[in-house]
Amino acid sequence: MQYKQDGNTYFVYVQQNEKIMDTLTQFCKDHDIHNGQISGIGAIKNIEIGSYDVENKEYIIHQLNEVWELTSYQANVLLKDGEPFIHAHINISDHNLTVKGGHLFEADVAAVGEFILRKIETDGKRELDPNIGLATMCFLD
Amino acid sequence: MQYKQDGNTYFVYVQQNEKIMDTLTQFCKDHDIHNGQISGIGAIKNIEIGSYDVENKEYIIHQLNEVWELTSYQANVLLKDGEPFIHAHINISDHNLTVKGGHLFEADVAAVGEFILRKIETDGKRELDPNIGLATMCFLD
Amino acid sequence: MQYKQDGNTYFVYVQQNEKIMDTLTQFCKDHDIHNGQISGIGAIKNIEIGSYDVENKEYIIHQLNEVWELTSYQANVLLKDGEPFIHAHINISDHNLTVKGGHLFEADVAAVGEFILRKIETDGKRELDPNIGLATMCFLD
Repeated sequence: MQYKQDGNTYFVYVQQNEKIMDTLTQFCKDHDIHNGQISGIGAIKNIEIGSYDVENKEYIIHQLNEVWELTSYQANVLLKDGEPFIHAHINISDHNLTVKGGHLFEADVAAVGEFILRKIETDGKRELDPNIGLATMCFLD
Repeated sequence: MQYKQDGNTYFVYVQQNEKIMDTLTQFCKDHDIHNGQISGIGAIKNIEIGSYDVENKEYIIHQLNEVWELTSYQANVLLKDGEPFIHAHINISDHNLTVKGGHLFEADVAAVGEFILRKIETDGKRELDPNIGLATMCFLD
Repeated sequence: MQYKQDGNTYFVYVQQNEKIMDTLTQFCKDHDIHNGQISGIGAIKNIEIGSYDVENKEYIIHQLNEVWELTSYQANVLLKDGEPFIHAHINISDHNLTVKGGHLFEADVAAVGEFILRKIETDGKRELDPNIGLATMCFLD
């Protein structure tokens, strides 16, 4: 991982074979980033990706091992149980330009992982919403 | 809807069964946001989505009623007829990771709608461009 | 091309039949933007798009001539050989909502090209990484 900082904005270069979610979460912890926004592009592999089954309140998880272009990564950072937690959704494409997408659990960088992270100076957090079955944004005091 | 503010940046949590476009447009009106940028992720349903037919100068509109992951939402806010107007494009995925996309007219939140809105302090507006058939960005004075 | 500026943030309207990558790269040069972030939406045509073959260290390139909605454009700007260079990934959709995606080489605007560019005040650059075969982010001094 390499990074470059301009105030509350960071370029974060997640390098070949590094884990995206682990690396970015650790970056937030190391730089005291409790809330933020992350976007990015790159090429990834060993992708654990899924979608939320609203009826059954559980994630349906798929594993993709090949290399895919990361055509968009959009994420927010909030506090969950007192620690920075990243919620990320992605779109990915293959050599035929076919696109898949979903909720990203984890992936390794296949070539490059190029992210821009903006720290937001709030103390927003997630708490379990039993009606939805997820730790959702909780901004009420 | 719940939100959290840091200067010109807002986390906006559009909650289950709320309308995305209506809620975000009303948020802009309530917070005096004339120009801005919005990105987001979530899970949505009752989606009115389409694409612009450049030849016939009209939108082709589809209705998707099932629950889809919102894998990316990118939008800008400009003034149209003196009111904040959101132009949004989305990508969405299903439980097989299949992705569809297009211009978003409206959708309801199925689980969560997590948006980050940045106010931009300009007075950019849209005006009808008869050659294109749309209210396009108009930045010339 | 038309634009509107608020400090380090620019709305950039790339107009019908203008080239996206050429126009945005020239914009960076003209406005002394060495590092930055760009996102956008619109409708495009004559699209040169591809994916990186990590094994063979070369891009696989496709040409799409029809009109596609630009459902997401995410890019970063860094210096390469001393000049601003844009690395962009896109997702695009057709009238059936089918989505394709990949690395964008160039495209023309079919209807509108609506971009938001944020200058980042760093001097990050790209240098050839022979292991990857690409000019990658290089943030070490």
